[in-house]
Amino acid sequence: MADEESIEDFVARLAGGERRALARALSRAESHHATDRLWLDALWKHVGESAAASLRVAITGAPGVGKSSLIERVGVAEIEAGHRVAVLPIDPSSRVSGGSLLADKTRMAELSRHPGAFVRPSAAGRMLGGLALNVLESIELCELAGYDRVFVETVGVGQSEADAALVTDAVVLVVAPGAGDELQALKRGLNEVCDLVLVNKADGERLLEARRVAGQYEAAFGLCHGKKPEVMQISASEGTGIADFCQWLSRRGAEATAAERNQVRRLQRRAFFERVLANALVEAISAGRFEADYATVVQQVERGELRAPRAAQLVVERLLSRS
Amino acid sequence: MADEESIEDFVARLAGGERRALARALSRAESHHATDRLWLDALWKHVGESAAASLRVAITGAPGVGKSSLIERVGVAEIEAGHRVAVLPIDPSSRVSGGSLLADKTRMAELSRHPGAFVRPSAAGRMLGGLALNVLESIELCELAGYDRVFVETVGVGQSEADAALVTDAVVLVVAPGAGDELQALKRGLNEVCDLVLVNKADGERLLEARRVAGQYEAAFGLCHGKKPEVMQISASEGTGIADFCQWLSRRGAEATAAERNQVRRLQRRAFFERVLANALVEAISAGRFEADYATVVQQVERGELRAPRAAQLVVERLLSRS
Repeated sequence: MADEESIEDFVARLAGGERRALARALSRAESHHATDRLWLDALWKHVGESAAASLRVAITGAPGVGKSSLIERVGVAEIEAGHRVAVLPIDPSSRVSGGSLLADKTRMAELSRHPGAFVRPSAAGRMLGGLALNVLESIELCELAGYDRVFVETVGVGQSEADAALVTDAVVLVVAPGAGDELQALKRGLNEVCDLVLVNKADGERLLEARRVAGQYEAAFGLCHGKKPEVMQISASEGTGIADFCQWLSRRGAEATAAERNQVRRLQRRAFFERVLANALVEAISAGRFEADYATVVQQVERGELRAPRAAQLVVERLLSRS
Repeated sequence: MADEESIEDFVARLAGGERRALARALSRAESHHATDRLWLDALWKHVGESAAASLRVAITGAPGVGKSSLIERVGVAEIEAGHRVAVLPIDPSSRVSGGSLLADKTRMAELSRHPGAFVRPSAAGRMLGGLALNVLESIELCELAGYDRVFVETVGVGQSEADAALVTDAVVLVVAPGAGDELQALKRGLNEVCDLVLVNKADGERLLEARRVAGQYEAAFGLCHGKKPEVMQISASEGTGIADFCQWLSRRGAEATAAERNQVRRLQRRAFFERVLANALVEAISAGRFEADYATVVQQVERGELRAPRAAQLVVERLLSRS
């Protein structure tokens, strides 16, 4: 059992590419048990700060645009190019009662069977906004196990790109023609949080429509100040555009030195931590662990006499005056 | 100027249906200025706890499914039935740089001109996950101004339904046929956070497809334990199904007494406040206002030696030991 072996032995198995070791470590990262947390703390202490040479890519977009099929195609192509590919799907709905309604077993069937790939099933972990609480740790565990392409699949629009940018090196927004007025998705600021727009399903009778959608994104980004994401047409079902996307990933991977990437990742770890901290503080406060006056503030808030922003300020000031 | 008039006079203008007064109050709720906050605190103190007879309805769904057109149609129908309708669009992308790329001026053109309606442009307020920080206050200001149907339009999938349920009485998910594999959106737990699924664009050549999608949702909800949301087909462009949706709103409005609704709203105010508080605490801690050791914790987090969950626990314990 992993519980009895030393951290050194476990890390050796993990680094040796043993899939069961990685699955076990990821389960521990999703666990609520204090012993699992202690074990992971010991692991990271043993590992120390390591400059990962991996590329972390968020694949985001509305349901039905074909994110999974796309990752499957690209994943296989990346493995053929010599990479090792890990896929971590994040399911924001899982926080309600855990897991998808539809069985996840058939997802990325080909990629899952590939020895160079590790596809994590959608986990029922705790959520933090649109992110899983353990996502950053899970990514780094995959890297520790030698995966140098980590795809994080997130469902959603709007907020999800910004969330995804918090934990990855590149954010790829997948859109598809035929979902109505796609331009509605083109909000100001999208260019800042995403790096590439893939117009999927650019095949058959949808080809012209895909071209039109891609043109709209390009035109809109042309009007933006600052970053201008690239726009590509792709077909996960026919395989067209996959090679271009792989080249884009290579360029993106080569853009930053390990030191530069590590600097960004330090800032990301901090930003992510602050979100986790916010959560923990509210749990502690709600549980009445901070101050007796809290109940009075809550009563006023519940009656609408005191509004949330001012009430929050009051609680913070009281905490400050005691420290 | 509103700045110089008394709160009593202002509330009288607001309750008298003066649109400029409502617009001014909503701007103050979105403001970062302390004077605006003080003014609103005085207003709520003056108003006291009031049992609003309004119905708060979240209209959520992916971009392009036709939420705005739907609200326009339903809004006009509700006004004709004697209601007063307010629409608050929440734009998760606005937190990046404010507002939509596309001009919002043409949105809900007919409804906007209607004397019985108030359509707030998409505001560049501060966000809290998928919600605007001021959304609950904005809803209650609309109610104070006599609007008894408040539609909150949120973009997104997954998390947004749960977010919307935090501040409204009913959550309506709008979907449209033709957006690919709609069933991907059908996650476990959706039945718990949404009350009605509207399959929009059920018209012309999309009619059969809409029927198929509606059937899929019904079948899936049939498998769920607990709440089973209704499923309706609707066409915002042709107007079919609008009357059914209005009837559904009436039934929903009559389901709870004012006292019952008020009880739910108290709990919502509390839950929303706790999210705002989390935000405020992290801001204070990041600014170094709590403890000198915070910088050391952050350094360890940045290096990956200390992971977010454990680091958060440490900071909370230290704060507790001081209070």
